[in-house]
Amino acid sequence: MKKMIIASTSTIHGSGYLEYLLLTLKSFFADVKTLLFIPYARPSGITYDAYTAIAHKAFSTINIEVKGIHQFKNPKEAILNAEAIFTGGGNTFELVNQLYKNDVLSTLKEVLENGTAYLGTSAGSNICGINMKNTNDMPIVYPPSFTTLGCIPFNINAHYLDPIKGSKHMGETRETRIKEFHVFNDISVLGLREGSWLEVVDNAIYLRGKLTARLFRKNQKPIELKSGVEVLI
Amino acid sequence: MKKMIIASTSTIHGSGYLEYLLLTLKSFFADVKTLLFIPYARPSGITYDAYTAIAHKAFSTINIEVKGIHQFKNPKEAILNAEAIFTGGGNTFELVNQLYKNDVLSTLKEVLENGTAYLGTSAGSNICGINMKNTNDMPIVYPPSFTTLGCIPFNINAHYLDPIKGSKHMGETRETRIKEFHVFNDISVLGLREGSWLEVVDNAIYLRGKLTARLFRKNQKPIELKSGVEVLI
Repeated sequence: MKKMIIASTSTIHGSGYLEYLLLTLKSFFADVKTLLFIPYARPSGITYDAYTAIAHKAFSTINIEVKGIHQFKNPKEAILNAEAIFTGGGNTFELVNQLYKNDVLSTLKEVLENGTAYLGTSAGSNICGINMKNTNDMPIVYPPSFTTLGCIPFNINAHYLDPIKGSKHMGETRETRIKEFHVFNDISVLGLREGSWLEVVDNAIYLRGKLTARLFRKNQKPIELKSGVEVLI
Repeated sequence: MKKMIIASTSTIHGSGYLEYLLLTLKSFFADVKTLLFIPYARPSGITYDAYTAIAHKAFSTINIEVKGIHQFKNPKEAILNAEAIFTGGGNTFELVNQLYKNDVLSTLKEVLENGTAYLGTSAGSNICGINMKNTNDMPIVYPPSFTTLGCIPFNINAHYLDPIKGSKHMGETRETRIKEFHVFNDISVLGLREGSWLEVVDNAIYLRGKLTARLFRKNQKPIELKSGVEVLI
């Protein structure tokens, strides 16, 4: 019964917050009046209130009210009672840390499995995978575990970047990092470029947006998936 | 009694492994005949043997023999008996994971505090700081802690990168990530560009190489340190 949008980014270059997704979200959240926002990832360390205000402003254009999970006394009940849920981007380590500290990870998984509509962007998408071991974020806090929701049977690498031709920088490319991951892990990884998203309809997962996405399976050459295809691992 | 070189990278663009540092290393390790190599970070998942062979080849040009810590029955004793130690780059999460699994972190700290000469590059430099919370690496494994050697009173961001002008990528810049770190942490962070290194002489720390380095203190505007200066936090 899953109904999820898992987006690489909230914002594409030269466009406002969630702007490129608004038409999709209008139809995806057609019956929704109030959205529960999870601001735990705090991009640039912004407060929960300020982050919730940004989400609220974007969703007000499609007549959806946004409430932050921090505005509820009991975050678990807020999730159980939510019409729909949106987890915004920021730092994945801090997001996962707070999901554990507030003891809501299993509750969130439960409602998503039961069909509560969900939008994730960036860090909010990384947590939909089996674990957060493919985030690009800096480990600024130490979460009690890297295990995440497992609502899809693979991991996400959000903001996927192709190697920059002619770069003189010697730090690892994204592809090298994912290959290192596969020395220690078997889980497949989908590199979602900015502007791509996944639509999850029960157990089927489709690639949306204009771009291709890069699928990394252990011990196999990475492949490019075309927009519109069902992602099969 | 500390005597350490903490380098941003092993390799600069267009040059061989450790090549830009060899003259410095020849004088730094003047009396050293055998170097203990810690290959735990496994760049691209390379084996300990293959990685040790790369280090061995580079150091053979300055007449130093290299032995991998994995070639010893007791890694703790290998560290205690080492003439000098080199920890190579790769994945910081796996490096720290193995330092804990082999129970050698405190032993390594002890010998470095007592004057065993040390070279770190990239991940091998990140571990010299208080914790590994400023690594750029992907969290491909979950180490039991992010706490590292604390041989210097701040953290390192190796391979420091300035924002790329005109980039259309919406992922966070390095500076933004370090600012996020300072929302949750008080520790200062030194962004070391490729080609820069720190020379630690007892408790004095000097910036070496041709470039400036970027020092981030909590709630302060970052500053550029000139090559040659003592790094004061």
